[in-house]
Amino acid sequence: MQEQYTLRIDCPDEKGLVHKITGVLYHNDLSVIRNDEFVDRENAHFFMRTEFAGNTDENKIISGLIGILPNNANVLLNKVRKKNIVILATKEHHCLGDLLIRHHFGELSANILAIVSNHKTLMSLTEKFEIPFHYLPHENKSREEHEAEVLTQINAYNPEFLVLAKYMRVLTPQFAAQYSNKIINIHHSFLPAFIGASPYRQAYERGVKIIGATAHFVNENLDEGPIIAQNVIPIDHTEDAANMARLGKDVEKIVLAKALKLVFEDRVFVKDNKTVIF
Amino acid sequence: MQEQYTLRIDCPDEKGLVHKITGVLYHNDLSVIRNDEFVDRENAHFFMRTEFAGNTDENKIISGLIGILPNNANVLLNKVRKKNIVILATKEHHCLGDLLIRHHFGELSANILAIVSNHKTLMSLTEKFEIPFHYLPHENKSREEHEAEVLTQINAYNPEFLVLAKYMRVLTPQFAAQYSNKIINIHHSFLPAFIGASPYRQAYERGVKIIGATAHFVNENLDEGPIIAQNVIPIDHTEDAANMARLGKDVEKIVLAKALKLVFEDRVFVKDNKTVIF
Amino acid sequence: MQEQYTLRIDCPDEKGLVHKITGVLYHNDLSVIRNDEFVDRENAHFFMRTEFAGNTDENKIISGLIGILPNNANVLLNKVRKKNIVILATKEHHCLGDLLIRHHFGELSANILAIVSNHKTLMSLTEKFEIPFHYLPHENKSREEHEAEVLTQINAYNPEFLVLAKYMRVLTPQFAAQYSNKIINIHHSFLPAFIGASPYRQAYERGVKIIGATAHFVNENLDEGPIIAQNVIPIDHTEDAANMARLGKDVEKIVLAKALKLVFEDRVFVKDNKTVIF
Amino acid sequence: MQEQYTLRIDCPDEKGLVHKITGVLYHNDLSVIRNDEFVDRENAHFFMRTEFAGNTDENKIISGLIGILPNNANVLLNKVRKKNIVILATKEHHCLGDLLIRHHFGELSANILAIVSNHKTLMSLTEKFEIPFHYLPHENKSREEHEAEVLTQINAYNPEFLVLAKYMRVLTPQFAAQYSNKIINIHHSFLPAFIGASPYRQAYERGVKIIGATAHFVNENLDEGPIIAQNVIPIDHTEDAANMARLGKDVEKIVLAKALKLVFEDRVFVKDNKTVIF
Repeated sequence: MQEQYTLRIDCPDEKGLVHKITGVLYHNDLSVIRNDEFVDRENAHFFMRTEFAGNTDENKIISGLIGILPNNANVLLNKVRKKNIVILATKEHHCLGDLLIRHHFGELSANILAIVSNHKTLMSLTEKFEIPFHYLPHENKSREEHEAEVLTQINAYNPEFLVLAKYMRVLTPQFAAQYSNKIINIHHSFLPAFIGASPYRQAYERGVKIIGATAHFVNENLDEGPIIAQNVIPIDHTEDAANMARLGKDVEKIVLAKALKLVFEDRVFVKDNKTVIF
Repeated sequence: MQEQYTLRIDCPDEKGLVHKITGVLYHNDLSVIRNDEFVDRENAHFFMRTEFAGNTDENKIISGLIGILPNNANVLLNKVRKKNIVILATKEHHCLGDLLIRHHFGELSANILAIVSNHKTLMSLTEKFEIPFHYLPHENKSREEHEAEVLTQINAYNPEFLVLAKYMRVLTPQFAAQYSNKIINIHHSFLPAFIGASPYRQAYERGVKIIGATAHFVNENLDEGPIIAQNVIPIDHTEDAANMARLGKDVEKIVLAKALKLVFEDRVFVKDNKTVIF
Repeated sequence: MQEQYTLRIDCPDEKGLVHKITGVLYHNDLSVIRNDEFVDRENAHFFMRTEFAGNTDENKIISGLIGILPNNANVLLNKVRKKNIVILATKEHHCLGDLLIRHHFGELSANILAIVSNHKTLMSLTEKFEIPFHYLPHENKSREEHEAEVLTQINAYNPEFLVLAKYMRVLTPQFAAQYSNKIINIHHSFLPAFIGASPYRQAYERGVKIIGATAHFVNENLDEGPIIAQNVIPIDHTEDAANMARLGKDVEKIVLAKALKLVFEDRVFVKDNKTVIF
Repeated sequence: MQEQYTLRIDCPDEKGLVHKITGVLYHNDLSVIRNDEFVDRENAHFFMRTEFAGNTDENKIISGLIGILPNNANVLLNKVRKKNIVILATKEHHCLGDLLIRHHFGELSANILAIVSNHKTLMSLTEKFEIPFHYLPHENKSREEHEAEVLTQINAYNPEFLVLAKYMRVLTPQFAAQYSNKIINIHHSFLPAFIGASPYRQAYERGVKIIGATAHFVNENLDEGPIIAQNVIPIDHTEDAANMARLGKDVEKIVLAKALKLVFEDRVFVKDNKTVIF
């Protein structure tokens, strides 16, 4: 049985990169399953992602690539495997429930190590699926104290990614920096419209005819991280803010699950504040 | 041959409005073709639109309705006919071209009386369709001077609605006030995202995965008037700002044409800063 | 506390129906919450649905309506309450999982009385949510024998609706007739494209650029019952049949849940082979 | 000023193709602007499209490629330029009007050499844009006689592609064979639903909740050629067949224009009855 790998490279663009990179793979007798590349011409930056199969010495591939790539290239070579994640949630169940079901049937491309929440609401749901649930209330704690507790609990699992499945606490930039481009959030609006609190209320007040949801990486500025996936649904004047919120939940959970699959399969490059996705 | 009418009523909600209003129509022996009503429960406001046919005394209908409606009701009774409009444009042809074709084949629910533009670019296209084209350049004029010229030219046609078909000049609040809720603009973003100039450039910089367009009434604040119609298309990292603009044009022209049809058929109520559309 | 009701009426169209029907409600001092009507002009048939609140004698309302409606009118007056349902499933978990989560949090507008399946696959998932699961294998039984068993089990619960949540057995016309317009199925294609087995395989072979799902009532002809809801997603040449099936599951579960909400809230009229939905 | 080229290759898949092909370009000192490849794993077939710039000997590139490709590879090397086309239409103006406007402003990636029609309806529109219009009525002629006339007229222009912009005559297989994979048609349904005549009427009768349009290459079987692009819009019970047709026109014209751009930019591979599009 051959191993499957995902190779991700990005670097300043120059002539012959595809030829040289595929040469390293070809001369190592690897079978390319899928190959995608893109050049951001405005910034002269090259992105390439290759799925391949073969029995190989990973170090040999890496050193072969380093030999032909520019000095400042980013190279990531991963065996295809599930990523280890911790999910943060608050009270709303739609995203967490959807992820638990997918996980239970092996469809998430991830192992959910634990759920951490500032409310007890979702404990019994989580426990049905035999996942550890850590209830860390924020009452009577400063933001920093609560975050320190949360971080200690999360770090004990050594996760590769954090998922904010409707976690309704704003993270400090210090928290975000510890998991830079490793935290995926679902925001319940079509960003950059309706940044911040109560986006459905904002959408209702503005009288929009379409609402949406956005999955994005979290960076130091609220709701301003690199966007991974978005989707929308049409609405009309008959929907009040509560109805919009209800309808929006189905968009949120599907967009979040789609974004997670892309991230966990190493399909998402982050460059500056944008994503390139193959 | 019977006349066709559109009746639009909005007023504070109270019990029995539908029964009473339909009673006036029934007792005048009118045939209701389509009837829609909506109660905005948050603001306790009632909206009703009725299409009916019959040979009737319009004044008798109106006075019958006034007899049973609250004092501050808005009542609009229109024979079904095309509206008279003037279109303002600048250099981009996609919206104007689409409207000229629809108009030429009688599909716009409107008579285009004239095109007014601050550039000559679209003159030859317009003249193919034998519509008057008024070239009013803005160079070397103050905003107020240019607007005064434009307004004088427009007013000479006595239009019922103005359409901004990619007219790239910001209207002053004074201009907007003269045609309150009678000016329809197409904005090349999914409002309220990317208000103001260069929305496709803004969308590109933000790295969104969906772009859109918004048709709205113009009020005193740029891009903040009541929204009539919106639509979106998915995009990805391969599209630069210029490509987004190109792709967006097809969305813009369809959204504008859709919004115009709704407005010209008396389907759109404006209440505060929102629309109710039947 | 006032009761809430849903009133549904359909009958041959005639002048004054809205006026007369709303008169009955008005003279019984009922508060209309929402009212929708539609006239199918091609067939001269009238549809009306009214939500209202009040403490009233239901028989008085019904007899008042019968007094003013044509003889062959269909009148349904329901207190707003959850419907009792049984779900049939086979091996795929995505629709059932989604419904179980919604039900667990009280969002389904229905009480799930039991799950019936011809496979054991979904038993442990169902039992997490403390819903009875009846495993009725079809092996070594004729279609009629198996259906008789299934029907006996279902009838023991006296459900108002049956939901086929990816139940992969074709029902006989005899079965369908017992729950006429009371069985909702999710078909994994954009009907009427790809009727029958393996629609994703068919879609792949045909090279379509969009795939979809259809929720519909089951009648005597496979996949030909009245359509309640449909949705689609774009795909391209990179998706093989297996990937299409995976992507399609998210469409299927959302379309099914949407259709069920519409049906359980008494929003769906069936007339001939079509639906009118308010 | 460098020339721009589009290179298209498809052949049975084998190891190292990307490496070898990009090697030919690299060793000829050409700048790759965009490169896309895809392997249809089910059929073990390789597709690659490359945009590049450079001053080069085309024959040298081709012979270099033939030296490293399997014997039965298809290789197409085109300088980037507008394609020469003839459009066939009947009475409906929406697609032709949209194409004439795009063409007039240089946005079609094609030169429209002439319009051929079996009706006079669109003559005056066409002549506004100074394009030859050939009126070839079909009355009192056999299908073969009429087609022979049409074909003679078309062939006089020596077009690279034919566009059926709502041409409402069924082409014989003999006609289609003369322009194999060179005729693009817009069908007013979401194929393979509603093949044949009156698809909107069929859609209305079936009670679908979404309608669509399909742009496809024409082959010997009506409406069964390779699909290039599709799109859909939601509809509901309030739309009769005539309204669906009206709403569908906006989908048709946008889908056709999108498909044409893809084809004229050499982005579309046809393999068996399917397309691969970069």
